[in-house]
Amino acid sequence: MIITLKNDAPLEIVKNLVDNFKMQGFEVYDSMGKDYHNILLIGDTKELDERLLMTNPIIQNVSKISSPYKLANRLFHPEDTVIDVNGIKIGGKENVVIIGGPCSVESTEHVCNLAQQIKDAGGVMLRGGAYKPRTSPYEFQGLETEGILAMVEARNRTGLPIVSELVDSDQIEEFEKYVDIIQIGARNMQNFSLLKSVGKRTTKPILLKRGFSNTIEEWIMSAEYIMAHGNKNVILCERGIRTFEKYTRNTLDLSVISIIKEYTHLPIVIDPSHATGNWKYIESLSLAAVAAGADGLIIEVHNQPECALSDGAQCLKPEKFEQLINKARSIAQVIGRDI
Amino acid sequence: MIITLKNDAPLEIVKNLVDNFKMQGFEVYDSMGKDYHNILLIGDTKELDERLLMTNPIIQNVSKISSPYKLANRLFHPEDTVIDVNGIKIGGKENVVIIGGPCSVESTEHVCNLAQQIKDAGGVMLRGGAYKPRTSPYEFQGLETEGILAMVEARNRTGLPIVSELVDSDQIEEFEKYVDIIQIGARNMQNFSLLKSVGKRTTKPILLKRGFSNTIEEWIMSAEYIMAHGNKNVILCERGIRTFEKYTRNTLDLSVISIIKEYTHLPIVIDPSHATGNWKYIESLSLAAVAAGADGLIIEVHNQPECALSDGAQCLKPEKFEQLINKARSIAQVIGRDI
Amino acid sequence: MIITLKNDAPLEIVKNLVDNFKMQGFEVYDSMGKDYHNILLIGDTKELDERLLMTNPIIQNVSKISSPYKLANRLFHPEDTVIDVNGIKIGGKENVVIIGGPCSVESTEHVCNLAQQIKDAGGVMLRGGAYKPRTSPYEFQGLETEGILAMVEARNRTGLPIVSELVDSDQIEEFEKYVDIIQIGARNMQNFSLLKSVGKRTTKPILLKRGFSNTIEEWIMSAEYIMAHGNKNVILCERGIRTFEKYTRNTLDLSVISIIKEYTHLPIVIDPSHATGNWKYIESLSLAAVAAGADGLIIEVHNQPECALSDGAQCLKPEKFEQLINKARSIAQVIGRDI
Amino acid sequence: MIITLKNDAPLEIVKNLVDNFKMQGFEVYDSMGKDYHNILLIGDTKELDERLLMTNPIIQNVSKISSPYKLANRLFHPEDTVIDVNGIKIGGKENVVIIGGPCSVESTEHVCNLAQQIKDAGGVMLRGGAYKPRTSPYEFQGLETEGILAMVEARNRTGLPIVSELVDSDQIEEFEKYVDIIQIGARNMQNFSLLKSVGKRTTKPILLKRGFSNTIEEWIMSAEYIMAHGNKNVILCERGIRTFEKYTRNTLDLSVISIIKEYTHLPIVIDPSHATGNWKYIESLSLAAVAAGADGLIIEVHNQPECALSDGAQCLKPEKFEQLINKARSIAQVIGRDI
Repeated sequence: MIITLKNDAPLEIVKNLVDNFKMQGFEVYDSMGKDYHNILLIGDTKELDERLLMTNPIIQNVSKISSPYKLANRLFHPEDTVIDVNGIKIGGKENVVIIGGPCSVESTEHVCNLAQQIKDAGGVMLRGGAYKPRTSPYEFQGLETEGILAMVEARNRTGLPIVSELVDSDQIEEFEKYVDIIQIGARNMQNFSLLKSVGKRTTKPILLKRGFSNTIEEWIMSAEYIMAHGNKNVILCERGIRTFEKYTRNTLDLSVISIIKEYTHLPIVIDPSHATGNWKYIESLSLAAVAAGADGLIIEVHNQPECALSDGAQCLKPEKFEQLINKARSIAQVIGRDI
Repeated sequence: MIITLKNDAPLEIVKNLVDNFKMQGFEVYDSMGKDYHNILLIGDTKELDERLLMTNPIIQNVSKISSPYKLANRLFHPEDTVIDVNGIKIGGKENVVIIGGPCSVESTEHVCNLAQQIKDAGGVMLRGGAYKPRTSPYEFQGLETEGILAMVEARNRTGLPIVSELVDSDQIEEFEKYVDIIQIGARNMQNFSLLKSVGKRTTKPILLKRGFSNTIEEWIMSAEYIMAHGNKNVILCERGIRTFEKYTRNTLDLSVISIIKEYTHLPIVIDPSHATGNWKYIESLSLAAVAAGADGLIIEVHNQPECALSDGAQCLKPEKFEQLINKARSIAQVIGRDI
Repeated sequence: MIITLKNDAPLEIVKNLVDNFKMQGFEVYDSMGKDYHNILLIGDTKELDERLLMTNPIIQNVSKISSPYKLANRLFHPEDTVIDVNGIKIGGKENVVIIGGPCSVESTEHVCNLAQQIKDAGGVMLRGGAYKPRTSPYEFQGLETEGILAMVEARNRTGLPIVSELVDSDQIEEFEKYVDIIQIGARNMQNFSLLKSVGKRTTKPILLKRGFSNTIEEWIMSAEYIMAHGNKNVILCERGIRTFEKYTRNTLDLSVISIIKEYTHLPIVIDPSHATGNWKYIESLSLAAVAAGADGLIIEVHNQPECALSDGAQCLKPEKFEQLINKARSIAQVIGRDI
Repeated sequence: MIITLKNDAPLEIVKNLVDNFKMQGFEVYDSMGKDYHNILLIGDTKELDERLLMTNPIIQNVSKISSPYKLANRLFHPEDTVIDVNGIKIGGKENVVIIGGPCSVESTEHVCNLAQQIKDAGGVMLRGGAYKPRTSPYEFQGLETEGILAMVEARNRTGLPIVSELVDSDQIEEFEKYVDIIQIGARNMQNFSLLKSVGKRTTKPILLKRGFSNTIEEWIMSAEYIMAHGNKNVILCERGIRTFEKYTRNTLDLSVISIIKEYTHLPIVIDPSHATGNWKYIESLSLAAVAAGADGLIIEVHNQPECALSDGAQCLKPEKFEQLINKARSIAQVIGRDI
């Protein structure tokens, strides 16, 4: 239950009210900002008579809460969370952040050259997979530590912060040391042990991909797991959901942009590459995402898509990536942002 | 099978080739434009040896066709289809067309007033349901002919062409007489008898909504039904697909915009109102659709959403509709179009 | 709202209560059986105070109704509906009815021979498509009237009642004259005009297939359409729903058997052929359906599956059909029925 | 590519063939049984000319393999895998195994009493969750080690082997020591790190639940992960997939039973409790599963469903569980098995 207090409620009376709820066995969270003052009660609130509560002169409104998250909930944190990654800001009204890079890191030279091309095109971060979650045990599983170090070298040369996927809690120390944003992949979105670990054991920003068959509410709950265990730096990333449609690999759900901004205060980034599985649709959906208010894009870029070690068909070549960024910038400016 | 001929192929030799295929029992479609010349063979092409065909000096390329449509297929009609509705053009590089109106027509006065507000806001067509396909037999089924005539009056007063849904072939004459665009709803997308009827018995433009669980290919095949029976004026309309997500009524699939433009030459319009079922997400997705290259938007507008007879929560008020159009116009201009 | 009256409620007092509700503007349905007496109120029941109603000594229980159907609703018709087709009974505790036949009727001789094989195997009805709803306008659309007459001849020779799909209300007279059960296909499940027509213009039993992406509630609402327009003889038929799975054409949802029997009084028949699209899985799922309590099975049978004009891979040969029936009979006997 | 050899192929010539393939750089698996002899080639087989291979007199057939799994593949292991758990056999033509127990372990006394009731009803194994993967970080996360020890006590008293879910590789030693079957839950089906760990670090049988949005092929690939890392004792468990339907929590897909038995040699168990989320539909679907050929059922049983700490509504009381087993036994006997 959420109790919204009047702005002029005397703090002493509020304290009495809170203590009273605690004595009745409720867990109580008191959330006060410049323009609001909310109290969240957790526990069996069925017995509480709302009309009776409303007779209390310091109470302005009472509502049963349906959303089961609180740390991610905009109601208790009305300001946008803006996450700072080596000086680059994601969220709020900040510039739309463009992240590019290969699906898998292939070699140091390769990723370093690509990083330079991404930077030249206007990208501000580098993505690349070193530990790859593969459907088949016989597929290439990534360069692992060697891949992480290759990305570190690319960062050294270009200054671009690096994003990479973590698939096991054993890798947290390595990622804490080397990586700037830790990605949790779609298939691990409900690997609650891993969520707890990245909540407890690191404060690096977490890019939490939506599971391909998870509801928005489940996704926010997974962010809540990370936050409840101590790490508040969560960035949500939509990468398409599984539907019956066959012309695209997944169906990109752009309604999430408004919804995430309504229900949470977290940044939302869109991945059109994995969603469509086809480079031809990436520009169109990237522009759509920026127009809809996304805080960032994460796009697969490769200089020789036809010979990439994985997922070649969904990569953009650097020159197309640059074109895309230029158009996206103009769109961003229309809605009061920039790139 | 599609056989692409070289540009300088002598027509006589082409004719021999075509006759030869016909004698072998194939249905043959010969499609020639300024820059291309394709031959489509329908029939059992498995036995045809592609490598052998490629030895023919007038043949440039041979490809097994997987898409089972031809009239809607861009391969055989590379130019965009542009549909003219009382002078308003939909498709190609024409202006993005904004269609607004109530879910159901409620009365003549009401729809006339609303039409004026839509026009003032920048909308160029009026939508409104007179025959309503309802899940329940006990729900309001629409004003029927009275509703159509109310829209006609609104057109008389404002000049806006009108769009309305047809649910039974018995209504074709009425719609032919009064309506400017005939909508076929999502639930009738595979009502093949109805598709044949609007193919044969009218040449009015058909706005064909995607069934909420139909693949893009099935949707194009339904357009093909209408076209194969004689009516080439088909506009496709995406209105969201059914998924597991619960925060929106359906999931709007904006990847269709690029895909429809790649595979077909038909215009594509987006309906964000039915897709989301929530007015709060309509502006964001409308801007996204325009950025992605949609040829039009069809949006529910109502001046008193809270008391609309149906689907109130998904209506925009006229003033929000105007704001949306103004932003959408700026986005359209970025990608080289206008509103 | 449903008001359950006590069994000994004096009818005069009940009448007063009902009149009173009518004066308040509610639509009232009074449903009385041997062991129950329910009153259904339709209208804005939000203002009715349930606790106040419960103080009335003739009222036993009050519940807000969530299901929007009443004629199909078991609450108002607790006895199973048993439908009699030329002496064969479907529903209740009657024998499980086995319906077999080709997807499409191919010729009189062919369907007559097949009908005899189906009868010999233990099937009690013949199915066959004469009007085929095809995704493509270029595919075989059925023999139409000639196909219906071929089935009539098969009935004359074997005595098996015939089931065929109706796709347009223009065909109702033909079907009324010749066919024993009228099938409404999955793609027309929400073609409300057609539902109204078969509700009003025929009393032949309707086999209503579930749309491949329709919820159970929508399906029951479509049955309600037919019933509300006058035809109470509705048989529901599950044929698989569209999911992301690719090893089967659709996913057969056998939970519908218990659910349909809980919420409605109508018979439920299972079609494993269209659900799986693969003859290898039909026996297993047919036995499952009988064990789960299905009132019937409708199965594609063909004597030369490899050369059937449509959907060959999902047909059973007559000898496998007979094996299936023999096993299904033993299963039916375990749960107190027979075949 | 799979090369099927003739039964009388001389082994020396086979060896030459195999060596030859190895020299060409293929990975070669030679699989020989009483009635078959197959060779699997892994590598780039596109260049191999099938027709040329067929001219080899010892080769009977050549087929491109589409399924990307080999250890789980029935083609290379035609005999059913039968898994022995403390003398109870799962798979093949063995008795259908009935596993019952609470969703979460609540206390030692509680689970011991329940275990006795399950045994008395005819159940042969005990399930119970000690580590619970919860959507919300604020929900009860299970008794953890205390829960495992409570189950061990229940096994001591009743002799029933125990099944419990493992959510983190840190728990493998504990499970290796105490638990008889290790469950990998639906949400971890593509947690490849965990799959590798239970493949490498234990030989206990693994009950691998299908992810609620995973295809059958992805599920088999996850089994392949476990097997490829050393643990061949995998039991597959279907627990419903996520669809648009709302009357059940998930849609139970019983077609998997035939499909798993066709494509793999592994046992398949059905969980109707989590699939439906409603105790009323469990018996019907359990009988269906047995009729369809399932090797086992895993069912939630609780003596006071209304006060269970989690998922109460989907539990059966012990007396209903016993009724279900008695009916299921008769069904099993019809198809040549027993319980």
